[in-house]
Amino acid sequence: MKPVSSLGEKGLIARLARGLRPGAGVIRGIGDDCAVLKLPLGKDLLFACDMLVEGVHFLKQSRADGVGWKALAVNVSDIAAMGGLPRHAVVSLGLPPSTPVAWVDGLYRGLRRCARRFKVNLVGGDTDRSEKIIVDVAILGEVEKLRAVRRDGAEPGDILLVTGRLGGAVRSGRHLRFTPRVLEARALAARAPIHAMLDLSDGLGPDLTRLCEASKVSAEVEAAAIPRSKGATLAQALTDGEDFELLMAVSPRDAQRLLSWAKKNLPCGLTAIGRMLGRREDFLVKVAAPRGVKVPRILEGFQHF
Amino acid sequence: MKPVSSLGEKGLIARLARGLRPGAGVIRGIGDDCAVLKLPLGKDLLFACDMLVEGVHFLKQSRADGVGWKALAVNVSDIAAMGGLPRHAVVSLGLPPSTPVAWVDGLYRGLRRCARRFKVNLVGGDTDRSEKIIVDVAILGEVEKLRAVRRDGAEPGDILLVTGRLGGAVRSGRHLRFTPRVLEARALAARAPIHAMLDLSDGLGPDLTRLCEASKVSAEVEAAAIPRSKGATLAQALTDGEDFELLMAVSPRDAQRLLSWAKKNLPCGLTAIGRMLGRREDFLVKVAAPRGVKVPRILEGFQHF
Repeated sequence: MKPVSSLGEKGLIARLARGLRPGAGVIRGIGDDCAVLKLPLGKDLLFACDMLVEGVHFLKQSRADGVGWKALAVNVSDIAAMGGLPRHAVVSLGLPPSTPVAWVDGLYRGLRRCARRFKVNLVGGDTDRSEKIIVDVAILGEVEKLRAVRRDGAEPGDILLVTGRLGGAVRSGRHLRFTPRVLEARALAARAPIHAMLDLSDGLGPDLTRLCEASKVSAEVEAAAIPRSKGATLAQALTDGEDFELLMAVSPRDAQRLLSWAKKNLPCGLTAIGRMLGRREDFLVKVAAPRGVKVPRILEGFQHF
Repeated sequence: MKPVSSLGEKGLIARLARGLRPGAGVIRGIGDDCAVLKLPLGKDLLFACDMLVEGVHFLKQSRADGVGWKALAVNVSDIAAMGGLPRHAVVSLGLPPSTPVAWVDGLYRGLRRCARRFKVNLVGGDTDRSEKIIVDVAILGEVEKLRAVRRDGAEPGDILLVTGRLGGAVRSGRHLRFTPRVLEARALAARAPIHAMLDLSDGLGPDLTRLCEASKVSAEVEAAAIPRSKGATLAQALTDGEDFELLMAVSPRDAQRLLSWAKKNLPCGLTAIGRMLGRREDFLVKVAAPRGVKVPRILEGFQHF
């Protein structure tokens, strides 16, 4: 198998840039010190980055195009979680010189597939030698002025809604092919004010805790109401990471409206799983489970350190 | 020495965010899925990323704050090379769990120092476990509409100018404390149309070759005219990387104007080192050296693969 070292840096970059044409809003894409982009009028800018590391977020045996898809999709998901539209991305790539060219081709196939699907322009990047494979994407998105949905606006009494189903994303391989909920977030935010939202990357327990900390409120979750992926246990639905579904807090009235709209129009599903409580409880997140169901210590989601 | 693993992910992130206050144009900084930024009117956006990898761009024994400075400064330099102003950055950090907390503190001291100096807002990031230390920065800058200075506009007859002095940046440790030429680029671009510009990261030979390839012209360099760092040989000035000085092509008339302005006003210096030749030479870059001076094969700069 031909290693990337056989291409040389110039050959590698030319190979990665194949088939990437500057799209809307791009004045200058790959090939200069920076990409040059037109500003969208009447918008705010969203800016984030998310890194995948071999051995932590994927294994060398993982399908390369799944890794490429995921590397961009986790960033698209961050934009979705603010209610925005993804627009442009740059990719920093660390590769052992022995990495097979075919693996890198697969990685970029996945990246390009995700970019096409969500209309993201890949406008630049950096390639470096490293011991393990590193794929770090930084993304730019846009959202209507002052309309970004933050995670710190949840209020006591709000209903907690979640898209899709939770648990087992890594075990099932779903984490390498999940759908970032861009359209879902836009559609929901257009129909009701969403007080707080984030995407579930580290698991419902840890991520809900974050939403509570940011909003300075507590939350109660009905264990039985959590929509589980096929075969996932309650513990998995509460603590598995990499679901990339959206968790949001809305007023009870808007929750009803969104739930009935979603029933007909949101194929991934939308489920009420609990509510926000007062600001001064002696807990942040409480799980109400039927008798006899063991609730895991939900704050033990994946910690990087 | 306390390792970062003792802080936990949350503790680490809180520590990194210390003292970072959202500055001008930042609606929401660290603490959400994305940063939210106001768009500057009448500008185009510049977007780039640059990754440093332990063992490739720095050693574990390197001074942490020098590595932090460099991680942001190389990105600021990319913005400078387009004639723009840096504005916002996000930082992806990969760390072995055994990394001393003191090292990470030093890294962020350097990052913050560079951010303050060049008025860059550090608005977000990602932290992950990795085997080697990885610091990847993505940067946003702005430039007056349609005024970004690209690398593909050099014309036959243009004079090649370079800021500062070249060679020996790694050996002398200067690569961990260099000054990105933001103000210099702005001042020069305001005084004359710069046909093409880039920053010297891989070495004068390789980078001039890139400028020639992009502009589809050839270039001739006068070896004796190249401004060398103290102790640097001609070979080093031609092929050492990490200088981060600016190389630009301007009309002969503008070159005279800029050189005489720079003599009084540009402390780093500005030097004419050669000129652009026709589009159909049988070479891209030729080095004219005095008799008896050995010219190295200048295209052998640092290649990552």
